[in-house]
Amino acid sequence: MLEWLRPYRRAALPGDISAGIVVAMMMIPQGMAYALVAGLPPAVGIYASIIPPLLYALFGTSTTQSVGPMAIISLMTASTLAPLATPGTALYGVLAAQLALLSGLVLLLCGLLRIGFLANFFSRPVMSGFTIGSAIVIAWGQLRTLIGGPIELGMRPHWPSILLGVGSLVLLLAARSHLAPLLRRLRVPAAAADVGSKLAPIAVVLGAMALVQQLGLVQMGVATTGAVPTGLPGLNLATSSQHWQALLQPALLIGFMVFLISMSGAQALALKRGGEKLVSNRELVGLGAANIGSALTGGFPVTGSLSRSAVNFAAGANTQLASMITAGLLALALVLPTGWLALLPLPTLAATIIVAVLGMLDLSTLRTAWHYDRADALALLATAGGVLLLGVEAGVLVGVALSMVVLIWRASRPHIAVLGRIHGTEHFRNVERYSAETTPGLLMLRVDAGLFFGNVDAVNERIDEELVAHAGTRHLVLVLSAVNAIDTSALFGLEELNSSLNRRGVLMHLAEVKGPVMDRLKESDLLGKLNGQVFLSAAIAWDQLAGSRAAGTPAAAAQPAGKP
Amino acid sequence: MLEWLRPYRRAALPGDISAGIVVAMMMIPQGMAYALVAGLPPAVGIYASIIPPLLYALFGTSTTQSVGPMAIISLMTASTLAPLATPGTALYGVLAAQLALLSGLVLLLCGLLRIGFLANFFSRPVMSGFTIGSAIVIAWGQLRTLIGGPIELGMRPHWPSILLGVGSLVLLLAARSHLAPLLRRLRVPAAAADVGSKLAPIAVVLGAMALVQQLGLVQMGVATTGAVPTGLPGLNLATSSQHWQALLQPALLIGFMVFLISMSGAQALALKRGGEKLVSNRELVGLGAANIGSALTGGFPVTGSLSRSAVNFAAGANTQLASMITAGLLALALVLPTGWLALLPLPTLAATIIVAVLGMLDLSTLRTAWHYDRADALALLATAGGVLLLGVEAGVLVGVALSMVVLIWRASRPHIAVLGRIHGTEHFRNVERYSAETTPGLLMLRVDAGLFFGNVDAVNERIDEELVAHAGTRHLVLVLSAVNAIDTSALFGLEELNSSLNRRGVLMHLAEVKGPVMDRLKESDLLGKLNGQVFLSAAIAWDQLAGSRAAGTPAAAAQPAGKP
Repeated sequence: MLEWLRPYRRAALPGDISAGIVVAMMMIPQGMAYALVAGLPPAVGIYASIIPPLLYALFGTSTTQSVGPMAIISLMTASTLAPLATPGTALYGVLAAQLALLSGLVLLLCGLLRIGFLANFFSRPVMSGFTIGSAIVIAWGQLRTLIGGPIELGMRPHWPSILLGVGSLVLLLAARSHLAPLLRRLRVPAAAADVGSKLAPIAVVLGAMALVQQLGLVQMGVATTGAVPTGLPGLNLATSSQHWQALLQPALLIGFMVFLISMSGAQALALKRGGEKLVSNRELVGLGAANIGSALTGGFPVTGSLSRSAVNFAAGANTQLASMITAGLLALALVLPTGWLALLPLPTLAATIIVAVLGMLDLSTLRTAWHYDRADALALLATAGGVLLLGVEAGVLVGVALSMVVLIWRASRPHIAVLGRIHGTEHFRNVERYSAETTPGLLMLRVDAGLFFGNVDAVNERIDEELVAHAGTRHLVLVLSAVNAIDTSALFGLEELNSSLNRRGVLMHLAEVKGPVMDRLKESDLLGKLNGQVFLSAAIAWDQLAGSRAAGTPAAAAQPAGKP
Repeated sequence: MLEWLRPYRRAALPGDISAGIVVAMMMIPQGMAYALVAGLPPAVGIYASIIPPLLYALFGTSTTQSVGPMAIISLMTASTLAPLATPGTALYGVLAAQLALLSGLVLLLCGLLRIGFLANFFSRPVMSGFTIGSAIVIAWGQLRTLIGGPIELGMRPHWPSILLGVGSLVLLLAARSHLAPLLRRLRVPAAAADVGSKLAPIAVVLGAMALVQQLGLVQMGVATTGAVPTGLPGLNLATSSQHWQALLQPALLIGFMVFLISMSGAQALALKRGGEKLVSNRELVGLGAANIGSALTGGFPVTGSLSRSAVNFAAGANTQLASMITAGLLALALVLPTGWLALLPLPTLAATIIVAVLGMLDLSTLRTAWHYDRADALALLATAGGVLLLGVEAGVLVGVALSMVVLIWRASRPHIAVLGRIHGTEHFRNVERYSAETTPGLLMLRVDAGLFFGNVDAVNERIDEELVAHAGTRHLVLVLSAVNAIDTSALFGLEELNSSLNRRGVLMHLAEVKGPVMDRLKESDLLGKLNGQVFLSAAIAWDQLAGSRAAGTPAAAAQPAGKP
């Protein structure tokens, strides 16, 4: 806890302070925007940005992670609560806090049980598909707020809202692509220019607030955030026992995604820093504490956000002190008079959301996967489709299922090579790729996959096919140089293969069994039941078996069979 | 279709006929018993044993598979229908047929979509746990029928039922362990003795029926199967549209288990025969047709049963003609007067069920897994517990989830070895297992696992740890001799590692990349972005990198560092 604080170097302070200020300025519009996505009053987004990062700093392990509201988690919150309560009601707020509490408890429990490895259930293409699907859902949901009314045929356009929303959108889009280059051309250092361009949202928001006040846009019907109560959020957890059960399954899914999103962001940053050690089970505890803290201060589910953490890192954050400074500044903003916040126009906030999620619409993973591995690309598209058609929660399950389906599908097509000897050497190679000699009666197969339940039947089937193709085989040598592990299912598979071969008068031998695999096999009955031998290398097996055969039929063994 | 019939050899006929007769005699009590487990009138079990095997013979690929009612599938049927209708009502029967129809359609669809590989989602230990859990649930459910009344404190024992049920149980148990040895001692050939001992149930059933008639047990209150209508089942599929939706998800699970149970049995037999080729997608079609056929003739979900198929095989079955003969004999039994069937006492039928499922209580998988791989053993126990506590349907999902959790958990602990050179050779080995020399500034790591989403983060973390442990590393060589595949997630992981190392001034090299993996990598950007080189072998990498370093610091490179 607070391990980073003890050896705190004074040299780290300036970077932490500047990052703390920059992220606070980024957090005010972002927190309010993501509260809006979650269907909550914008002020709740600021509440959820104070205590959670403080608790994460106490328990988490990433030095630059910025914990708070995040678009996808807000979308999941909204989709969970929609059938239970109406946005804007007190019940809705209570349920949002309960959801954060349950998600936090789930995370905490997973951390204490040390099951952080569960985050590995999502492949990256599937995560990309999930993010793209969610971004589209979020952007579509904000369009209505952007133009100040429903999108339907025969609607009466509300021009003040449309002008403000679309104007903000255009400004933000322009800032996104042109502000950093412009600042650099003005001799601002490259890093500062990049960080500066991330402050465009607060600038646009402040400008829009000025416009609202100057032009009296509220009187014209432009929606604003409304009054934000001055003062810090109090301890607050009204219970409504009837909904706990309905929230449990969503809380599991949200907890899973909170961890997944936060870890993938923290890992990306850790790789950038180099040498930073994330401990996934402590991350679970940190994120669990953050969400429980959010719940207790009237917030909603939060997570680490890569985009915000990247700004934190780029603005100089060295330790979690930066996030603590951010939290302090946000608390200060709520203690000072907050009347000015009431003027923040929702169309502008919607524009900041749309521009933020456009950054999530990254198609490069799809492009890479399409060329590298079509199955992964299809899983990506199917997950995005799942989010769009079935909703964001079902999308999580679709994503996990597709990751696994692709995995098992690949396992069901194992690569097995028939080996031959490169003439005059001790090297054995795939006869399809090399001109290698074989000898009749001796079949050497190299299985190029760890053996586990997902491929055991497919491997046995393939071996059977090769035995049919190589009629007259008396010795089958399984070369296990590429087999990194054999699980219990595969152990049974090998035992069955052995007794099947026994009945058919074929001896089954093993060769080049790896050390750790051999250590395991010694704990089993397989080696005792094996009707053949275990050879250290394929060459030794060849010498001995081709030789032993030669005793019976010398002519056949003396002549290498060549490529079959 | 009927591929086996065209080249039918006359020599196969005697075996097929004897197997056909034996299995028919086994099927009569078994079909009725499993109908009882499913909550259906016993006669339905015979209906479901006529058309399904005929359709399976048309489309399936196993030569000796016996398709019909099976204990676990009957349990799943009962557990699906229990909340929807009362056993014994017409609605219950209609829903059972609808469930078979939906399961059949699911199987047929999976076969046409060629997604038979999905059966690989269950590990063997998990399947064993599922079977054990189901066996206990079935046996417990039959205890009440065995003793002719509910099991509770203060119950009034119904002695005629108890005597008949427990007597049958004792006889069947004795037959199971002693009949085959006894027959062998009477000079019956071993194979015939084994097959003969499988006919104990029909003998006990016939004896019990004689007792019922002689002693007038029906009048004493012993329950019997009741009248079985003479004649074959007609085409029958009353629809009750309101329940289709409730049946859909159970039908998916039942279809999955039908396929899994049938395939694992057929594979075990195929390995015994040797050279028999099962085509999983055609098995799906065969089982789908069988279930649709069952539905259309008033039956319930069916599958291939290993125990029955093994008897079929042992009794001499050479082709599916044996199953067709069995079906013909059962049809004949229904056309002849069926009055005698009405006298079959349910306590005896319950005894045959209990003895049959006791055979499923096989603890050898648990014992093997416990010694070989504790994680698999725990997954087995958890799945059995899932079936007992949550029910058989949830048990399927628990089983799939646990198979995957164990898989991902293992992947999250990849084996990575620091390699050193065996002095004076070109061989490189794990420095922890061998006395091998290393050279400062050059770190060679061998990753012993295919790289995929399940281990990409763990692998990167481990590599980072090794870099911290070997400070001053300038060249990192990843020896990929044991990496059989790299999926898209791992490709991104390697790219991130490369750019992270780049920032830290470490060059990343690859060595001994396998042919198929290299073919894939050439389709990606990784090789172009790589800041180091790709070496054919670890030895070449050593020679070149230790050499290039030597140019800068000759003293260090000239002295092998020895075991660190």
